[in-house]
Amino acid sequence: MTPPLRLGIAGLGTVGVGVLRIVQDHGAMLAARTGRAIEIAAVSARTRDRDRGVPLSDYAWEDDPVALATRDDVDVFVELLGGSDGPAKAATEAALTAGKPVVTANKAMLAIHGQALAELAEANGASLRFEAAVAGGIPCIKALTEGLAANRVTRVMGVMNGTCNYILTRMEAEGLPYEEVFEEARALGYLEADPTLDVGGIDAGHKLALLAAIAYGNRVDFDGVQLQGIERISIDDIRRARDMGYRIKLLGVARATPAGIEQSMRPTLVPAESPLGQLEGATNMVVIEGDAVGQVVLRGAGAGEGPTASAVMGDVADIARGLNIAPFGQPAATLERAVRANAATPCAHYLRLSLRDEPGALARVATVLGQAGISIDRMRQYDHPGDDAPVLIVTHPCTPGDLADALAGVSGTGVVGADPVALQIQDV
Amino acid sequence: MTPPLRLGIAGLGTVGVGVLRIVQDHGAMLAARTGRAIEIAAVSARTRDRDRGVPLSDYAWEDDPVALATRDDVDVFVELLGGSDGPAKAATEAALTAGKPVVTANKAMLAIHGQALAELAEANGASLRFEAAVAGGIPCIKALTEGLAANRVTRVMGVMNGTCNYILTRMEAEGLPYEEVFEEARALGYLEADPTLDVGGIDAGHKLALLAAIAYGNRVDFDGVQLQGIERISIDDIRRARDMGYRIKLLGVARATPAGIEQSMRPTLVPAESPLGQLEGATNMVVIEGDAVGQVVLRGAGAGEGPTASAVMGDVADIARGLNIAPFGQPAATLERAVRANAATPCAHYLRLSLRDEPGALARVATVLGQAGISIDRMRQYDHPGDDAPVLIVTHPCTPGDLADALAGVSGTGVVGADPVALQIQDV
Repeated sequence: MTPPLRLGIAGLGTVGVGVLRIVQDHGAMLAARTGRAIEIAAVSARTRDRDRGVPLSDYAWEDDPVALATRDDVDVFVELLGGSDGPAKAATEAALTAGKPVVTANKAMLAIHGQALAELAEANGASLRFEAAVAGGIPCIKALTEGLAANRVTRVMGVMNGTCNYILTRMEAEGLPYEEVFEEARALGYLEADPTLDVGGIDAGHKLALLAAIAYGNRVDFDGVQLQGIERISIDDIRRARDMGYRIKLLGVARATPAGIEQSMRPTLVPAESPLGQLEGATNMVVIEGDAVGQVVLRGAGAGEGPTASAVMGDVADIARGLNIAPFGQPAATLERAVRANAATPCAHYLRLSLRDEPGALARVATVLGQAGISIDRMRQYDHPGDDAPVLIVTHPCTPGDLADALAGVSGTGVVGADPVALQIQDV
Repeated sequence: MTPPLRLGIAGLGTVGVGVLRIVQDHGAMLAARTGRAIEIAAVSARTRDRDRGVPLSDYAWEDDPVALATRDDVDVFVELLGGSDGPAKAATEAALTAGKPVVTANKAMLAIHGQALAELAEANGASLRFEAAVAGGIPCIKALTEGLAANRVTRVMGVMNGTCNYILTRMEAEGLPYEEVFEEARALGYLEADPTLDVGGIDAGHKLALLAAIAYGNRVDFDGVQLQGIERISIDDIRRARDMGYRIKLLGVARATPAGIEQSMRPTLVPAESPLGQLEGATNMVVIEGDAVGQVVLRGAGAGEGPTASAVMGDVADIARGLNIAPFGQPAATLERAVRANAATPCAHYLRLSLRDEPGALARVATVLGQAGISIDRMRQYDHPGDDAPVLIVTHPCTPGDLADALAGVSGTGVVGADPVALQIQDV
């Protein structure tokens, strides 16, 4: 009989408690499936004296996560502290250096230090796994790294920040302005302490960079992700996009182009009838496109105690079964520095301009766009209570760079008001 | 450097050719990802002299798949012959007996002989993998066996026969009768030689039995799957279901109940707005519900050269990486004989009755249903050109057994025509 696999768990917030519950409730099932008993040896958290609703008295306690990670009776270090640096990173490094496998839900740490940690893991023959870091309970890292390993990936997309999707779908369903739903989400505790992590696309950008690294065999390159938040999306944008058959999602797209890797996380129009367009509330979705498999869509809860703990324990089960695949799917030393080719792929765009109410203004705009090579697919002018008239334009495919140049020209005409809103339309 | 992993491929139809293409085109990528070169040592098929569009001259040829499976230079046997018995089974057994891993796309063989083959594989320390047997390119076996291993699965559902979904969605989109679309599908080559395998739900039932075995730790029990085909679904059923907010899918459901395992594959009404309800054409979908993760939905191509070959080669990549998990997720000896508890879970039903055009007929039916404890949620009577009036009833939840008893009573009234159509409505 294989000896038990003993976990050391650092971080006893929502996810940590979920992990404890699974180990406590499903011991026999896990042992049957993995061939080993899975036990908890020791735990660590910032505060010891807090009722978390699960018994802790059977487990050793460590105040210091580094001490926890290096205990002799800990076989696998489970890092649920969060934060890209500090104790999470120190303890992860300590565990890997000691040759112990690490399971983590920490997207920020991996998006920034993933390459160094993967090298450290491989140098010590230890596994480093992070299914829970991307899209919560959806086994998308496994699908990409293992199930679809025989595909040259052509595009990976994801709606991976439940809070943003909640805000956008609630704005649409209730006809509420962004600011109001944002405050609601804050009151409900849906937002990070620094809300920019959510609504600025940073959290989702971390996740996208991890998926892209696996998909394209490049070193994780979060700095290469073009970020745009949802703060400027108005209820009118949402409604008008809907009128034209689209919905607006905070969508991550990573694509291999002949010039390099394109990575972006930004509010994007997607066809309302597509799986991405039909996604409601806080649910996450990851879309993987491969040359052999075509399009695979994965959908599920992107956060919460149970779903995230399910992903953590899926990784633990793999370790119990003896799996040790390179963290990013191929040896870290073979991962290439990403060649960034952002904004290289032409796509249709949605533009919202605020047009001065004066004769010939629309013609001026259309002329300038045309001269810049931006071809207009559809244009709608809406009723307007004030001086400026909202004008919506859907362009034919053009590169974001060409569009930016054209918009600079449009601003120069003096017939448009505040900064135009330009959103990409993604074929899915 | 680890020596190359040498494949022996039996069966050079669509999928076999897809596998050859991946190995030929993606050699460097596969080696980078798995740490081993993946090569083809030998192939076998019924006919040698046929142009398959891919070069075969580098590979040894065997007329006999058993000889192929046991060649010294074959490390992994890839079985793509099809058929539950005969050469496919003989060669699979020969490979496993010789301790060689087997990758197969053969759902019929596994649904019928899965337990014996898993025991043989484990006795010889060989891997037996079959991602391609269920839902084509969707990595659902991996998700269920590995990614979601920490969940007690509560329900698994799937639309896993692309041909049936094609027929049903085309009937709806074009307003065509079943017979006409069936003939169309036959002309297009979408149907198996024995079309009952498709439209009778047998093929999809094989797949469901495999998912259920993994989900619930029981021996694969295809005979325990309640089967109902799509042959009796009329275009009127489809339209009327749509009127009431549902769509009809050939849906497999496997559920753990206190009384045992329920398995069924039958035309079922699902909410039109659910992911299952929105599934069009030949695309497949697998829905896994676990106590921790909640609902995970996986969607992708269920058949075809690329998607199926992607699944086969995903399994090969796992073997190259050294993975050896029990075929059904836990040792075959620990799988229990399935306790069948079919039709135990109450659900709402859709009924189509053909009512004699005589006074009081509808009241008679309603009375008999009520006396049998079947409560009516909605009832609609439609215009009718002939003598009999179609009546549609949506019941409140009741067990299929109670409903069958009630329908026997309804038949006894003499006021209804031909056999009623009764379909389950699944909450998803």
